[in-house]
Amino acid sequence: MQRLILFCSLLLLITTVNCQPKEENKPDKLAHYQTIADSMISSVLGEEKGYEMFLEMCEIGPRLGGSEELLQAIDWAKAKFEAMGVDSVWLQPVEIPLWVRGDIETASITNSDEYEGRELNIASLGRSVGTPADGITAQVVEVKSLEEAAALGDKAKGKIILYNRPLDKTKVNTFYGYGGAVDQRAYGAIEAAKVGALGVLVRSISTQYDNVPHVGVMRYEEGVTQIPASAIGQVDADFLSKAIKDDPNLEVTMIMDCANKGMATTYNVIAEITGTEYPEEIIVVSGHYDSWDKGDGAHDDGAPSIQTMEVIDLFKRLDIENSRTIRCVLFANEEQGAHGGNVYGEFVTASADSHLAAIESDRGAFTPRGFTVDASQEVIDKMNTWLPVLRKSLIDWVIEGYGGVDINRIEQIKAKIGYAPDAQRYMDVHHSDNDTRDTVHPREFELGVSAMAILTYLISEEGL
Amino acid sequence: MQRLILFCSLLLLITTVNCQPKEENKPDKLAHYQTIADSMISSVLGEEKGYEMFLEMCEIGPRLGGSEELLQAIDWAKAKFEAMGVDSVWLQPVEIPLWVRGDIETASITNSDEYEGRELNIASLGRSVGTPADGITAQVVEVKSLEEAAALGDKAKGKIILYNRPLDKTKVNTFYGYGGAVDQRAYGAIEAAKVGALGVLVRSISTQYDNVPHVGVMRYEEGVTQIPASAIGQVDADFLSKAIKDDPNLEVTMIMDCANKGMATTYNVIAEITGTEYPEEIIVVSGHYDSWDKGDGAHDDGAPSIQTMEVIDLFKRLDIENSRTIRCVLFANEEQGAHGGNVYGEFVTASADSHLAAIESDRGAFTPRGFTVDASQEVIDKMNTWLPVLRKSLIDWVIEGYGGVDINRIEQIKAKIGYAPDAQRYMDVHHSDNDTRDTVHPREFELGVSAMAILTYLISEEGL
Repeated sequence: MQRLILFCSLLLLITTVNCQPKEENKPDKLAHYQTIADSMISSVLGEEKGYEMFLEMCEIGPRLGGSEELLQAIDWAKAKFEAMGVDSVWLQPVEIPLWVRGDIETASITNSDEYEGRELNIASLGRSVGTPADGITAQVVEVKSLEEAAALGDKAKGKIILYNRPLDKTKVNTFYGYGGAVDQRAYGAIEAAKVGALGVLVRSISTQYDNVPHVGVMRYEEGVTQIPASAIGQVDADFLSKAIKDDPNLEVTMIMDCANKGMATTYNVIAEITGTEYPEEIIVVSGHYDSWDKGDGAHDDGAPSIQTMEVIDLFKRLDIENSRTIRCVLFANEEQGAHGGNVYGEFVTASADSHLAAIESDRGAFTPRGFTVDASQEVIDKMNTWLPVLRKSLIDWVIEGYGGVDINRIEQIKAKIGYAPDAQRYMDVHHSDNDTRDTVHPREFELGVSAMAILTYLISEEGL
Repeated sequence: MQRLILFCSLLLLITTVNCQPKEENKPDKLAHYQTIADSMISSVLGEEKGYEMFLEMCEIGPRLGGSEELLQAIDWAKAKFEAMGVDSVWLQPVEIPLWVRGDIETASITNSDEYEGRELNIASLGRSVGTPADGITAQVVEVKSLEEAAALGDKAKGKIILYNRPLDKTKVNTFYGYGGAVDQRAYGAIEAAKVGALGVLVRSISTQYDNVPHVGVMRYEEGVTQIPASAIGQVDADFLSKAIKDDPNLEVTMIMDCANKGMATTYNVIAEITGTEYPEEIIVVSGHYDSWDKGDGAHDDGAPSIQTMEVIDLFKRLDIENSRTIRCVLFANEEQGAHGGNVYGEFVTASADSHLAAIESDRGAFTPRGFTVDASQEVIDKMNTWLPVLRKSLIDWVIEGYGGVDINRIEQIKAKIGYAPDAQRYMDVHHSDNDTRDTVHPREFELGVSAMAILTYLISEEGL
């Protein structure tokens, strides 16, 4: 028993001795980090410099992959980074399939006494083929799922299929609501073509009931006829659903002149500030710079991209030293297949760069809530010890979860981190003319900047 | 050593045995609570019934204390509660000082070559006296604080004082920003009158830079002359600040016909559903039903009031049994002195009612974040064990803090709980024409309902 007591005393002593330096250092370090965090928050909320940059970028126009506007915005971003005084900025070429919307996307009702001439509010889905110049005119069959479409068999032949399953509003996480409906948009044309349909209309995926079409990318399958696909506003989807019950013989004429036009070159924009202690260890902060050509492409993903630009500017303008290298990447063409993310991932794999962490901002620019992290439990636990600092910018949690589609291609990295702001209003605007600059709130935007900047700083100083 | 091991084993056994029943019961109970929470969330997000009620209420008009509109809204709420099938609903009379805005609140520049006739956007502050019919015409002195006003001494004599210290935007918590500026509005007229000023203009307290006046209550002090006080839009406050530097002789004419008109009677609306097990133990869910007569009085405090009405409706429409009594209180005239809260507090003190907890919703109807609780640490700890259920409605924390001004008057109560949604957009609209129904997002509103309903249910079933 004496020996046991001695052993316990020794153990206690060792533990105490071991803990002592940490216990002593930690409050000091924490206080230092909190001071830096306070200065970042004060700067972003007081100056709203990133928000001003965002408004400036919006003047260029929405940034469809392959478009002239995206190229202009890329030049603008490069110049902005240079003006910030970053250590290097370069454009990384990305080959992408070129899709153009064209000038015409209309639908109207014909062959109907009651509804003749009634226009429907549609917008071509990304990567869709167009119709013949005089359009497609056909009767409409409504389904609620891919399975229902497949089960139509011959009844679909020569028809337009209306996919009309709404987003499930009862899901608290609006991304789950979106995820539960998006298969119609992504694969609807494939299943419809397999049963002989001529075209598809897809109910817009939104949490807000209005008549604005919400677009997004759609897919074709090799060996299956490529038929045109459009989003349709929810009000008109409901109208059409009712109209074909009233008058089953009515027909819809869809005219779209969108087209796939081979390949084009666009660019990832990459800018970095070199670490003072471990320059070879890289922390990426990123968003995708392309958008759909609707509204301003504001929340998806213009504002979040500019947030990550301001993270860099914040270190520069506050003269905060970063021990590790901080690299901002504005990815190209996420919307049409994450081509920029793929290229960057391959580049990292091929290079000797050591990536410590990557943060992606692609869930809107609303008030911060947390970070979802694709990393080992050890790394997540470590990040959780930083909550007393992160909470200053309204980050309440760091949990296991998805990082993001563009950073997902980076191999050999300790943490892929998704910035998670409040997302209740996101799907109202997502991929539509609703996604305008005025829906981005300057304080919400800037708090997001501070949240990512503080996390970046903590990783830079503490490692992972 | 053998004995020590035996002792340890016994200790382990006792601990295990002691824990066993708890460990077994808890997951079951938790699962049950989570099921109830899910059903509540699904109902509010799917049906948006409270949000519909809110829009209906907005049709009545804003609900200034003592106004006909507030009385109409009170009747409307009573009828709504009756239609829900509550066990009782009654109106509790509240005597309040009657203030009327009148028809005229104007200011314009005179005695100036450069700015003659320029109108300023003002709105009388609540409880302010009016001006003589032909107004007050005087030179303007700008100050940034009450101290600066007091220090003016004779220089203020016969002048209008412009209080022009803005809200500090760098505060993350917008209530702290508000709190740091509101003394000018509350006490500005007193300090100005003490140094002989004739009237005051107070820069609007807002996080959004525009020209909309933000009103609110102001005070007088016995023995100090009552001088008229108006809010002025920020753009015009800045304009005036510049103009008096350009042309120190310019004068401003303020004309206001607001007035204090003795006393009036209004009412707290009280509705309850009786507890099945402990009917004598009461849980209050509450908001204040009055507003300023600007915009719709939407976020302050129309929508939050209706949220608490829907808490009651949710129990009724989902047929959820409550072990303890749940009482909704819509307080009267909070804006002009918390008169409804005072009356209710006195009523509770005088009655045999045992109040377990009171929840107040008076910080806007934005996405839920947490609850701030005025209670013992033991109670707060207990509420924290409910986070696995509360998190479903996006409640991330339950922390020590302020409950709310109306429930603050309730004595002998275990917990006063403030519902804390995201507040980044609150001060943009607060007390102004910006506070309209369209700024309330249905999902954010409804998630708040579920957060408060779930907490109410947990208190009802678990006690405190």
